[in-house]
Order: sequence, then C-alpha cells, then structure tokens
Amino acid sequence: MSLCPEVLPLSAMRPVASARVLYADTDKMGIVYHATYLRYLELARVELLRAAGLAYARMEDAGFGLPLTDVAVHYESPARYDDAMTIHAAVVRATKVRVSFQYRVTAVRSGDASGASFDVLRAQTDHCCVRTADGRPTRMPDDVWHLLCGQVVDVAGDRV
Amino acid sequence: MSLCPEVLPLSAMRPVASARVLYADTDKMGIVYHATYLRYLELARVELLRAAGLAYARMEDAGFGLPLTDVAVHYESPARYDDAMTIHAAVVRATKVRVSFQYRVTAVRSGDASGASFDVLRAQTDHCCVRTADGRPTRMPDDVWHLLCGQVVDVAGDRV
Amino acid sequence: MSLCPEVLPLSAMRPVASARVLYADTDKMGIVYHATYLRYLELARVELLRAAGLAYARMEDAGFGLPLTDVAVHYESPARYDDAMTIHAAVVRATKVRVSFQYRVTAVRSGDASGASFDVLRAQTDHCCVRTADGRPTRMPDDVWHLLCGQVVDVAGDRV
Amino acid sequence: MSLCPEVLPLSAMRPVASARVLYADTDKMGIVYHATYLRYLELARVELLRAAGLAYARMEDAGFGLPLTDVAVHYESPARYDDAMTIHAAVVRATKVRVSFQYRVTAVRSGDASGASFDVLRAQTDHCCVRTADGRPTRMPDDVWHLLCGQVVDVAGDRV
Repeated sequence: MSLCPEVLPLSAMRPVASARVLYADTDKMGIVYHATYLRYLELARVELLRAAGLAYARMEDAGFGLPLTDVAVHYESPARYDDAMTIHAAVVRATKVRVSFQYRVTAVRSGDASGASFDVLRAQTDHCCVRTADGRPTRMPDDVWHLLCGQVVDVAGDRV
Repeated sequence: MSLCPEVLPLSAMRPVASARVLYADTDKMGIVYHATYLRYLELARVELLRAAGLAYARMEDAGFGLPLTDVAVHYESPARYDDAMTIHAAVVRATKVRVSFQYRVTAVRSGDASGASFDVLRAQTDHCCVRTADGRPTRMPDDVWHLLCGQVVDVAGDRV
Repeated sequence: MSLCPEVLPLSAMRPVASARVLYADTDKMGIVYHATYLRYLELARVELLRAAGLAYARMEDAGFGLPLTDVAVHYESPARYDDAMTIHAAVVRATKVRVSFQYRVTAVRSGDASGASFDVLRAQTDHCCVRTADGRPTRMPDDVWHLLCGQVVDVAGDRV
Repeated sequence: MSLCPEVLPLSAMRPVASARVLYADTDKMGIVYHATYLRYLELARVELLRAAGLAYARMEDAGFGLPLTDVAVHYESPARYDDAMTIHAAVVRATKVRVSFQYRVTAVRSGDASGASFDVLRAQTDHCCVRTADGRPTRMPDDVWHLLCGQVVDVAGDRV
C-alpha cells in the first residue's frame, strides 16, 4: 500500500550517479532528511540524460524544460552520514509531451568493509515538457523525443 | 493519472501554516524548487499536531518518532518568489502504528492586490511510528494515538 | 578572533522574524546545520525591508537586485529542533551601490517554560546593487537608497 | 574590504572535490544560492580529510566532532546551472582544539569548450573540537591533531 508505484528492478536500471551522505543531508535522527533525496534523484536524472547524449542545460538554452508534475517516493531503509549511495535510474515512459523516470537508491554503510549494499528507496517522477519562456506545455523537439524513446526500458530491462 | 492519490477538498482541511517564498526556495526557472515544498509540508504537519495538543518534540523526548515511509506530490501551478503560501493539512488515517496526512498548498501571487489564491500542489505523506532509540516500528503511546484519531477527517470534512 | 566583525548589540536591532527549528534544519548532531541559518538571515533581511516599506520583489520587478558579496557568521550556541528562534537585524551601512546588514539570532529552547533566550549567532552580510538584466553593478534607484539610509543605525542604536 | 580574510592562492590548495551545479542549487537569479556553496565547502573539507587518511565519520564514532565556530565567504563571480565547479581547500591552522580551513571555488561554464575557469568564491571556516556526547570543547585525539598538523600549508604552499 505504498504511494509509489512498482518500479523496475535494479537490474533494469543503470547506476547513473553516486554520492556520499554529507552532514548537510542529515537530520537529527541521524539519517538523510526525506526531502534531500530528491536532490539526488535530480542528479541521477540529469546524468542519465547526459550519458544518453542530452545535456539538459542545452535543451533549456533551446527554450524547453521538463519540470516535475508528480513525484512519489517509498522510503525503505535510511541512509546515514558518510554512507556511499548509488542512484539507479531509467526512463519508463516518453510521449511527445511527457516523460517518466524511475529510481532506486542503494547504499553501502560507511566503514562497512564487506561492501554489502541495502535498499534506501524507490521513486518515480513524471515530467511535462514546457516552453521556458512562458511555462506552457508544449511538444518536445523531435530529437529530444527520439532520444528519450531510445532510453525507455520495460520491466525486463529491455529497451522497448 | 497522478502519482498522488485524491486528497481531501480544501474545505475539509485546516490552513495550518503560512510562509512567503524566499530566494532560498526558488530555482533558476523562477519557481519554488520541487523538493523545497516538502519542508513546508513538514511545517504544516508539526503545526497541525501542535494545534491539536501534541508537541512532536515532546513525543521524541518520550522515545517515539514518526518518520516518513511514503510521500506523493502532484504539482499544479508553481509558486514564485515572495508569493504568500498557505499550507492546509489534515490527518486522514491513524492506526496504532501508522498515520497519514494530506495537504494542499495554495498561494497568492506577490503584489496581487486582489488576493486571489491559486492551487500550488496537493500531497500525501505516510508515517510509521518508531522507537527513536533503534528506529524499530512500534505502537504509538495510547495518548498520541487517541489524539491522532480525534483529528482524522473524512472526505466530507467531518471528524470520523 | 572571529571571522565575523563586531555587530550591533541586540538593543540596536529589531526582532524582524521568528521561526521554529524544523527537522529539515537539523543535522545528525541534533543542531541546526550551519548553512541553514543563512536562509533565516534572508528571511530577516526581506522582512526588515518590507517593514521599512521596500518590497524586495518590487525592486526586482524594477530591474535591480542586491546579491551578497560577503557573509560572515560567528556561531555562539546551537539552536535545536523546535527551538523558537528570533532573528534580529539592522542596516549598518548604505552607499549608492552597497548595503550591509547585521544580525543576531537568539532562541528559546523548546519546552523551556522560563522563556529564557540564548545567543545563537551573530552575522553580517554585504550586498552590491546590480541590474538583474545582466548582473552588472549599478547605482540604486534614489528612493531605495534614501529608504535604506533612513534605516541605518549606529552602535548606540540611533538612526544616523 | 571583504569580510573574508585573504586566503591561500590556488597553487597552495588542492582540488579536493568537484560537482556540477544542480537545479536544486540555483535561485531565481539563475545563479547558485549563496548558502548552497557551504554544502560544497563541507564536501571539500571531508574529502580533504579523507585523502589525508582521516575519515570524519570514524572520528565521530570515537566521540569527537569539529563543528564550525565561524565562516566567512567572499563571492566573486556566480556559478550557474550545469557549470562544473572545483572546490580547492587547505588546512591553514591546527591547534589542539581548533582547526581552520580555506577554500577557493572555481568553475568552468556549462558548454564552454575552451575549459576556461573563473573564480567563484573564496572562504574560510574555523572549527572547534568538541565531545559529541555533550558538545563541550575538548582537545583532539593526538593522532587527529598530528594528522591535521601534517596538512597545514603556508602561503607559499609549503607544508609547515
């Protein structure tokens, strides 16, 4: 009964970004503050696009943006200070005006020589293409759309 | 097709907190960064509880916490710098180990003398009661649970 | 041997904003993360200006901004979760292109019925007037400059 | 007339961390929000210590912390979205209870094929050793102090 839909298995995603938990990320319970993870999802999203050949900054220069319309996160086990997080992501849907990403964050506990990783969270974000000039929804440029379509994976981890 | 479930109408929630958008909250699109709103949901949650007679800090002093297990947000129309936001919230479910809150954020545009408000987002957060000593799920103290139950409203805005 | 210059005594500043410490503000040491206070200094600055009759958002609408060129903070005693902070501020210098603010943050410990307040930090920020169009330094509009000059207080707390 | 003292030249510091500017880091002026840089200074500090053989998380496990007592930043030229920042840092002082770091942040503009870097800011942070149990100032463990002393550089960039 999670607010987050089922997401792809780890094997169907790519580990697109990694980061160690900073003091800045933690809260008084000694764990990463729940909102802070969204920053790392952004990092994963932009690095996934960059690896696919799409520099988001250049898309904006061309007058298009992909703001979030929805986010859902299911928190599994909290990351703590200095834990080494890996953010895995995939494109799961791309239409001419919308794109959805799914994510899994895993982490290795600071100082854990075994390197065993645990599940931190799973998440999905939905985005709508807008003209940055006025924020109005619009169709993506064709090259962006084709590039995103080429990234879409299905539950088996296959490009579709 | 939002990731956020339907939430209570405004009329069934209470306006529990208000804040003007700071520069710190905005991003380069000139709007509030999507993760920043979660901070204001926290503000609303803690003030809703305080108004109901529950100081969350005292609950923690007693060894109990209510970390998030899930969050879902549907972004409607972005708030901008200096807009006057109001965060409305309600308890929508309370069991002995879990509690869920729903939220609506509205805003009045900075400098808009008409005072017309627009819908910024709607959201839900789910929480699990844990012992702060070890983070293990546990039953809430009876007084907390009774207090939360007394706050639960149904879709018509009635206490249930 | 602090990095922050001497600042005005509390009696020479105005309590311009207040806020309770959120979970979002804390770090794993259970105290407010040092960078988070800068957000509250911004809140104080904008409310000081608003109380003086200058809506910073309107100044930006007119094409002028006051970005920071310098900040210095001396941390005295940390605020903790749910502490009630008061941010005191004053304008200490205003030329046609520069303005400086000083701040003192005090707090009352959460649940402390005595209401005794303690010193959290003192700080100064320096700002330069720029054209928002291109970020170039420029002279302030005369009405803004006169208004800021009218706010300048000296160490005795007198308007100068 | 900066609030930040003179800091070491770039040549006397090490480039200890790098990061691209995220949307999360920017504000409505399209530049990195001034408080956000402090997060990157923390990243640099912890990576400088890690490279020197001191895992800060382990120091905390042993009951010691190094909270900030002072910070001063002089902002030179703002970094923008997707700019590639490099954070340079050095230890400039270490006594048995205090340690100071200096920093320079440089950046290469997003999409700038020339790779030319510009100066973003310079900063200093001062820290005091405390017992994490009660937050009281204390002497550092000898091994930490010796390690920090071994990192101290003077203005010529020599270990002192």
